Amino acid sequence: MLLDKLAAIRAAHIILASGSPRRTEILNGILNLGASVVPSTFPEDLDKSRFTPKQYVEENARLKALEVYEKLKKEGKHPPSLVVGADTVVVLDDKILEKPPTVEAAKAMVNSLSGRSHEVVTGVALIYAPLDDNSEPYCVTFVEETSVQFASLAEANIDAYVASGEPMDKAGGYGIQGTGGSFVTGINGCYYNVMGFPMHRFCAKLDCERLEAWVEKFGEQSG
Amino acid sequence: MLLDKLAAIRAAHIILASGSPRRTEILNGILNLGASVVPSTFPEDLDKSRFTPKQYVEENARLKALEVYEKLKKEGKHPPSLVVGADTVVVLDDKILEKPPTVEAAKAMVNSLSGRSHEVVTGVALIYAPLDDNSEPYCVTFVEETSVQFASLAEANIDAYVASGEPMDKAGGYGIQGTGGSFVTGINGCYYNVMGFPMHRFCAKLDCERLEAWVEKFGEQSG
Repeated sequence: MLLDKLAAIRAAHIILASGSPRRTEILNGILNLGASVVPSTFPEDLDKSRFTPKQYVEENARLKALEVYEKLKKEGKHPPSLVVGADTVVVLDDKILEKPPTVEAAKAMVNSLSGRSHEVVTGVALIYAPLDDNSEPYCVTFVEETSVQFASLAEANIDAYVASGEPMDKAGGYGIQGTGGSFVTGINGCYYNVMGFPMHRFCAKLDCERLEAWVEKFGEQSG
Repeated sequence: MLLDKLAAIRAAHIILASGSPRRTEILNGILNLGASVVPSTFPEDLDKSRFTPKQYVEENARLKALEVYEKLKKEGKHPPSLVVGADTVVVLDDKILEKPPTVEAAKAMVNSLSGRSHEVVTGVALIYAPLDDNSEPYCVTFVEETSVQFASLAEANIDAYVASGEPMDKAGGYGIQGTGGSFVTGINGCYYNVMGFPMHRFCAKLDCERLEAWVEKFGEQSG
């Protein structure tokens, strides 16, 4: 965990390669890491058929973080200490659910979730700058999965939900942070993973010693 | 569920007898029920030794809602359609954890949660106005329990957490919405219950037909 290392982490000026307000809230609002937000512009156009859902989010997270790392490395005197990338999807029966393209598709998608559980899966990539000028960045990735149980939904309820417009811009056709949360009887797994960032796993995985070494070597020169 | 009954619920002008910003966010920000907030001033001085934790929160929720119901009934032409009360506690080994009185108590409390699971328990009371002038209010109560799993915490981490001050005003000695959330490896149960209000159970339990009947009888006279 990292609470006793907070000063060193803040001094390392880490980068979040995501524009998600909820991820910023977790890293800066809750953990108070003072991360700078540099959203990735990676297009997320990987061929899903080539990956399992877990491989897919892990690879997306890695490519997002790597894109931002390379960009900042070009701009700066030396690479950033750590770039954090993440990607979250909704998975039903090992298949990634996208945003529903039509109202009818949204109804079918919410109906497919009714009365059973599905997974929210987040991949996280941590790309650390090398501590030696000649070496490559050091990359750690992991995947967190949380199971989400839906109540059995009446058709009138699904229709009213789709008519509200909420499902149309949501991957999986619902938002647990919105009215769709009223369908959820329970979750099993990380609470924050459902919001798009597995806070505990991130804290457990973060290599604070490496960040401290970076600060010792480059801290005073960095902005 | 209630999405298809939203207009009737809003027309019933329900009352939330709690000053908790998170409960207001769930009822009004997420569910859009248009509830008015009238915080209870009930002192929460029940003798805990006389109740199990579940009985305790259920009785607190009932007494909070009843206090607000009686107050509004005295003020108004007729009683409010529905008053919602709630009470949430942290429970370890069937014992309610209070706010830690001292720094040492906070360390001991967080340590007692380390490496194991405990429960977040919320009691909810729904007090409906009678539809007949001569009858008593109709009260429904329920209790929702969510299990919360803590990681094994190093002493340095606990010390740093307590030194941050976060535990001191928190029942149970931690806040899942704060840095304390980084200790939580997972939950099992309702996501919103951990925030203090079990949104799904509330939606499932709400008697929309009763609210519709209230609106039909009293709706036009009400503010």
